[in-house]
Amino acid sequence: LLQPYFPSRHGPRHNHRHVRDCQPIKYGNVTHEVWPSDNRTGSPVATTRTFVSYIPPDGEDRKVVYGHFTFVRNPLRTFSVLEPGGTGGCQAQRRATVEETARLGKCLVAQNGGYFNMETGECLGNVVSDGKLVRNSRGLQNAQFGIRKDGTMVFGYLSEEDVLDQANPFVQLVSGVVWLLRDGEVYISQSQVAECGDIQTTGTFDKFINVMSARTAVGHDSQGQLVLVHVDGQTESRGVNLWEMAEFLKKQGIINAINLDGGGSATLVLNGTLASYPSEHCSFDSMWRCPRSISTIMCIHEPACEPADCSGHGDCVAGECRCAGGFWSGPACDILDCGPSNCSLRGLCTDSGCLCDAGWTGSNCSEACASGFYGDACTQKCLCQNGGSCDPVHGACSCPAGALGTRESRSRDGAYVDFSRLDRKTWISTTSVLALLLVLSAVGNVGLFLKARSERHHEGGDYLYHPLREMNGEA
Amino acid sequence: LLQPYFPSRHGPRHNHRHVRDCQPIKYGNVTHEVWPSDNRTGSPVATTRTFVSYIPPDGEDRKVVYGHFTFVRNPLRTFSVLEPGGTGGCQAQRRATVEETARLGKCLVAQNGGYFNMETGECLGNVVSDGKLVRNSRGLQNAQFGIRKDGTMVFGYLSEEDVLDQANPFVQLVSGVVWLLRDGEVYISQSQVAECGDIQTTGTFDKFINVMSARTAVGHDSQGQLVLVHVDGQTESRGVNLWEMAEFLKKQGIINAINLDGGGSATLVLNGTLASYPSEHCSFDSMWRCPRSISTIMCIHEPACEPADCSGHGDCVAGECRCAGGFWSGPACDILDCGPSNCSLRGLCTDSGCLCDAGWTGSNCSEACASGFYGDACTQKCLCQNGGSCDPVHGACSCPAGALGTRESRSRDGAYVDFSRLDRKTWISTTSVLALLLVLSAVGNVGLFLKARSERHHEGGDYLYHPLREMNGEA
Repeated sequence: LLQPYFPSRHGPRHNHRHVRDCQPIKYGNVTHEVWPSDNRTGSPVATTRTFVSYIPPDGEDRKVVYGHFTFVRNPLRTFSVLEPGGTGGCQAQRRATVEETARLGKCLVAQNGGYFNMETGECLGNVVSDGKLVRNSRGLQNAQFGIRKDGTMVFGYLSEEDVLDQANPFVQLVSGVVWLLRDGEVYISQSQVAECGDIQTTGTFDKFINVMSARTAVGHDSQGQLVLVHVDGQTESRGVNLWEMAEFLKKQGIINAINLDGGGSATLVLNGTLASYPSEHCSFDSMWRCPRSISTIMCIHEPACEPADCSGHGDCVAGECRCAGGFWSGPACDILDCGPSNCSLRGLCTDSGCLCDAGWTGSNCSEACASGFYGDACTQKCLCQNGGSCDPVHGACSCPAGALGTRESRSRDGAYVDFSRLDRKTWISTTSVLALLLVLSAVGNVGLFLKARSERHHEGGDYLYHPLREMNGEA
Repeated sequence: LLQPYFPSRHGPRHNHRHVRDCQPIKYGNVTHEVWPSDNRTGSPVATTRTFVSYIPPDGEDRKVVYGHFTFVRNPLRTFSVLEPGGTGGCQAQRRATVEETARLGKCLVAQNGGYFNMETGECLGNVVSDGKLVRNSRGLQNAQFGIRKDGTMVFGYLSEEDVLDQANPFVQLVSGVVWLLRDGEVYISQSQVAECGDIQTTGTFDKFINVMSARTAVGHDSQGQLVLVHVDGQTESRGVNLWEMAEFLKKQGIINAINLDGGGSATLVLNGTLASYPSEHCSFDSMWRCPRSISTIMCIHEPACEPADCSGHGDCVAGECRCAGGFWSGPACDILDCGPSNCSLRGLCTDSGCLCDAGWTGSNCSEACASGFYGDACTQKCLCQNGGSCDPVHGACSCPAGALGTRESRSRDGAYVDFSRLDRKTWISTTSVLALLLVLSAVGNVGLFLKARSERHHEGGDYLYHPLREMNGEA
């Protein structure tokens, strides 16, 4: 087992002031280093390089060391510290393989992260995961790596106040043990002073530093790229000690770097696939090597947005929010923007566009209401009678000369028949009634005619004179 | 460089008969071993195990060896030899990284395959890729691995006739150099006899066998699982020689195995991601190791169907064709099946179901044509006049007693009015005409009535007797 403080509690017993006061004078009061992170967008997010190197490079006792460096662009957007098995994993003292957690986080590259209690699964040190302080170590003095909201990378020792700073808070933070490189120089002896003030555990801590083992580290290069490093190994037989690790990183141009959990925890997962040689034997067959279930991981993913859901008003594409609907804008899609005319200052910009004041309409509230309409966005219909015109704001009717009132009569109330509305049944009924009446009428005609003829017949065909005016008068 | 025949031409100069005659007597005339392959379906297709082992297991000169074993189920369906950069790669003498070719083949696991000419890119040995003979080595005597159409795995030496066999042809075939394990025993000395008859190249071949290097091999275990093996290394400094490789495989229960291209070619790709430590330095920076562009690869993929497109009549799901449309069946979806009744033997089974003979219909052609219909699948309408019935096959009319001819008169030709067909215009016209007539009639009535009254008026109100029968007679 590769434990810096085993079996005592994790971390030194002294406080941050001790670290500040006991560090080399040249650093003054500053116990950490900062570096602006690379902010290039575009592919690839990360480049993983494979090495098989001799350490030390020459000499009889040189050994072969296997491992990978991963160079990460734009870490503010592409790097996350993830809790084991997803959000809440530290609270639940969960343990999961790097593969499991990496799958949940859709990580392109993932390595094991911070230390944890092998008995209980408790996450150790500070953990800030995607802007959320998951665990506060209360100022425990161990080497830290974090990224602040403005993209500044921070390496070194932090007070609890530093961790809780709200002006430029940490969005990612993970704790290691031993600051390997400070500003381009090996910083292991100084780390020993800072992280191990306890005489009782000195032997353990010294062995932790000097033993050959699998190691992982996180650092940065001069371009501000984040660099994840892992070296395969097995405690006491393969891999590197921390002095070798620090020298190796320094030679690769790493400027600041801290050491993270190693030994059986050291794991690299590329695209969801185990790409390192774990040192632990599998429980089911000691022939094979299996990755250990660990705690937090360092995850490199496609660029994320801030906030990740683009405020619910857009899609995150390559780390940039693409705002939806046409009226949300801003990097977080949280600003309503109806264009430069801003609804002509006669309306409110909403997520469905300008909500125009009463009397105005149009996408920019630049059009007055059409005749016959009034109210908010001209949606109400004027109800003035007798051709009166109405006020476009409140709908009050202005009556024409000679008329009074507020409404006009409705044309549809008239008693005319709308032919287009009649159905076939009505037509049949109408026609039948007419036909029946016609038949009755015709019968009446015939009857009357016959009666008249019969009367004339009885009169013997005599001619009767009816003065014209008499008939007209009777009709 | 790790070349068995470099710089002379690839393969021995002798023929298959030499190999057959010079092998140990106990094998008789059989120059290869066969083993039925595992045919379990279901996940996972392949399990890759990581090892970090000491070879030899004990002693002062033991060394650490890194590598992977991949155990493959159902290799007939999940294993393919793929040409570099896709189909036609051998013809084009293409070279591609294992990652590139594996991406094209959607390989879950991929390793470099056969040997190739480093100068020209020519694929060497026999290559059968997914049933297609891509390269015929014309009986060159090198260790071969292939899978025949029936799922039999073949390891060893093959004559050209064996390679071209059509009774049970090879669906995959790749050539290595040195048969590492034959029937559970190391077979390297015998391989030397079989594959290197040429004194001129003996030194090269011996060194090829005895040098420490990265190695790859393909073999099988007792369950019939295919086993891909790779060992990381670097020629002359890391890895294993072929004796160590053979012993190591034997200890893992491998029964037959051949050696494939090693050295800088040795590459393992898992899920599209490089998972081995290549021995060649990258051209752009010697700090890093880069996988070599090679020739054929061994690819483990999701189970494929035979044929891969299920004859165009189904979808390939986990290596099984799911036939589409309901009437295609068989493992290749190339058999039309309309059910056990087979269209009642009165029709043809097509991909849209039974095509019934004239006079029959129904999904099983079990129903005679309905009255009034005839022909193929009863789709034609009888045209017999006067209620004649027609022949269900040819449509010939049988006339009822007293009628002659072939067609019946059409009911729609009658002169009745179909109310439902009249449009509004007709209704309006009809109603108007009726109303007009009614008005005229009413006017007539009124006129006649008035005329009658006026006549009575002139008569001075005298009573006129009309006999009843006279009026009735006139009405």
